[in-house]
Amino acid sequence: MYSKTIQKLIDLFSKFPTVGPRTASRFVFYLLRLPKEEVEKLTASISELKNNIKICKSCFNPFDPSPISGQGDELCQICSNPSRDKSLLCIVSNETDLTTIEKTKKYQGLYFILGGTVSALKKTDLEKLRIKELEITIKNRPEIQEIILALNANTEGEATALYLERFLKPFNKKITRLGRGLPVGAELEYADEETLKAAFEGRK
Amino acid sequence: MYSKTIQKLIDLFSKFPTVGPRTASRFVFYLLRLPKEEVEKLTASISELKNNIKICKSCFNPFDPSPISGQGDELCQICSNPSRDKSLLCIVSNETDLTTIEKTKKYQGLYFILGGTVSALKKTDLEKLRIKELEITIKNRPEIQEIILALNANTEGEATALYLERFLKPFNKKITRLGRGLPVGAELEYADEETLKAAFEGRK
Amino acid sequence: MYSKTIQKLIDLFSKFPTVGPRTASRFVFYLLRLPKEEVEKLTASISELKNNIKICKSCFNPFDPSPISGQGDELCQICSNPSRDKSLLCIVSNETDLTTIEKTKKYQGLYFILGGTVSALKKTDLEKLRIKELEITIKNRPEIQEIILALNANTEGEATALYLERFLKPFNKKITRLGRGLPVGAELEYADEETLKAAFEGRK
Amino acid sequence: MYSKTIQKLIDLFSKFPTVGPRTASRFVFYLLRLPKEEVEKLTASISELKNNIKICKSCFNPFDPSPISGQGDELCQICSNPSRDKSLLCIVSNETDLTTIEKTKKYQGLYFILGGTVSALKKTDLEKLRIKELEITIKNRPEIQEIILALNANTEGEATALYLERFLKPFNKKITRLGRGLPVGAELEYADEETLKAAFEGRK
Repeated sequence: MYSKTIQKLIDLFSKFPTVGPRTASRFVFYLLRLPKEEVEKLTASISELKNNIKICKSCFNPFDPSPISGQGDELCQICSNPSRDKSLLCIVSNETDLTTIEKTKKYQGLYFILGGTVSALKKTDLEKLRIKELEITIKNRPEIQEIILALNANTEGEATALYLERFLKPFNKKITRLGRGLPVGAELEYADEETLKAAFEGRK
Repeated sequence: MYSKTIQKLIDLFSKFPTVGPRTASRFVFYLLRLPKEEVEKLTASISELKNNIKICKSCFNPFDPSPISGQGDELCQICSNPSRDKSLLCIVSNETDLTTIEKTKKYQGLYFILGGTVSALKKTDLEKLRIKELEITIKNRPEIQEIILALNANTEGEATALYLERFLKPFNKKITRLGRGLPVGAELEYADEETLKAAFEGRK
Repeated sequence: MYSKTIQKLIDLFSKFPTVGPRTASRFVFYLLRLPKEEVEKLTASISELKNNIKICKSCFNPFDPSPISGQGDELCQICSNPSRDKSLLCIVSNETDLTTIEKTKKYQGLYFILGGTVSALKKTDLEKLRIKELEITIKNRPEIQEIILALNANTEGEATALYLERFLKPFNKKITRLGRGLPVGAELEYADEETLKAAFEGRK
Repeated sequence: MYSKTIQKLIDLFSKFPTVGPRTASRFVFYLLRLPKEEVEKLTASISELKNNIKICKSCFNPFDPSPISGQGDELCQICSNPSRDKSLLCIVSNETDLTTIEKTKKYQGLYFILGGTVSALKKTDLEKLRIKELEITIKNRPEIQEIILALNANTEGEATALYLERFLKPFNKKITRLGRGLPVGAELEYADEETLKAAFEGRK
């Protein structure tokens, strides 16, 4: 239906998370309407992202290396912040989850981005996760006292948490999971049984 | 639009919870199509409800008095069950919440149905709640050790919990609220800040 | 979970259209809270419905017979209204659809309530419809010039319309269906292909 | 919260249609995970779009100029197709609507992309539309017999259609709008009054 050049870009945008062909075509028409210099700003910004951004050696969070501090080349702003609590390591599945937790300003420890979750304990899924890197991190940092598994409360998150608990057992650290219960705004009548059970167990 | 007899019944059904005029009219047409004996079964069943059902003197849950046991006239099946834990009193706002909790089979204590929630601490709202009855219950039952406020996690539930905590303070009982956190199935990315904070606090 | 008398009424309410067990239980608790005289008003109103309401001999719409006019015993207010256009007969599947059309004040002809739709042309489905009565109506009223099939635009409505078109063919009347096209508020981008085709065909 | 380079790209993606900051950040993390050559394919494809794609001189649809036909430089595949019906001109507000209509394979005439709709008849809104270009098109092509206003059935589409009808009146062409009525799958009971009126008017 669309001409070749347009279709090629629609196909590339369709691979973006949450984007289907209809939205992808709206992106293309948006770019076609955009002034040439705005489009160049976008492509430059995308190239810059790949060239400038470094991945933190410690938590694997992407970051802008600070041009001033020499340390900036290795560690992200969180990992190089001396006031963070180094006895806590929070394992998250991706960068967005890290940002979501940071926004609450509640957690003051460090992070480790696992790079995904596993749907079942399939070997191919596990190979995509940073399991080896996690092992090295924990071995190299004896100051870690508690490892928090901050994973989704769905099937994939559960499977991953289970796998990690087994994997982390030999390191003899305290391992915790995020609390379950009623979320803000929830009505008891519509709570599922598991959540309600957790809410009774976690009452205080 | 509708004839008088039909409109009168539509108006009565429209007062039912969650029912609007459109649904109410579908109820009326449903009754019109129903055989006469089915409709009589319904009206008989409604009358029976008002005549047979008693309200439990202890928890205010409606129940069928058992024709055998003499005790059946005063207390519901839960309150008269000797194996329930009498040291726990769970305050719920209505009958549906009690049933929702019973279905989890997790809680083994007794209940008290408050009869509603308060949106703000308005005097008129408070008068609709069974505050006086709650006071008597707690005074008469020194075996109560923990009072669980099992209220909705929304603004009304919070306001009611706050009011009850203040009201119950002089009785020197342990007062708890249901645990907050991620509900089953929740994705961290979409959790609101308050829920996420609670999930971190309640980690285990 | 619920006591016998309550469960019996929940089961009866659960048969109401759009009502599931959860809503049915809310109905029962609503009735339990209602003053006795309000509940009696409801049961009286339901009984009155079955006793008072007549079904129009012509269109099968339920109506209150007028105590004054002698004619009131046979025909509803629409069918006995001399200013309605007797050359038009609009076939609808149920009473609610008739009311929905009347509210537009656009249509001035008469109606015929079919009593349902057929999902496929199953014999058992067809037996529930007033096909025989429709045949008599059309034979007895030579003044009918156009028969409008005002059925849902879904699969069941289509199947029923198809069946009726075939059934009505021998009567040599003009047979029409409601127009297809974009509904008010629709955006072209989200219109399905069939609707868009109809909108092009029906352009004016 | 995010580093500068990441935030800059999030801001640019947030301007894409239907994209908010959350989705924009997912796009950035997706690009960070993508191999460098995949990202380069994307930026090349975006640049190519701005360099290769031409806008059709006749209907303003973007297209790939065919390298073979000399004609390809001026007119899109639809406008240069000799088998299309040149007596029909369909005015659409944007490229996506044109594609949606093409997919139905129902319409065989030509198009004109207006470049937007007007919410009210504000002068600033009108200036964004290709009104001048439309005038020239109609003057230059006396073979046009019918102009179809294929606009959304919402307030903006209506306002634009009204404006165009007035503007096009002096050209003495047949002007039509897409048909209104029940869309495929619609149930009569839930149809709004205007749609139902249109469905009665458009019955056939």
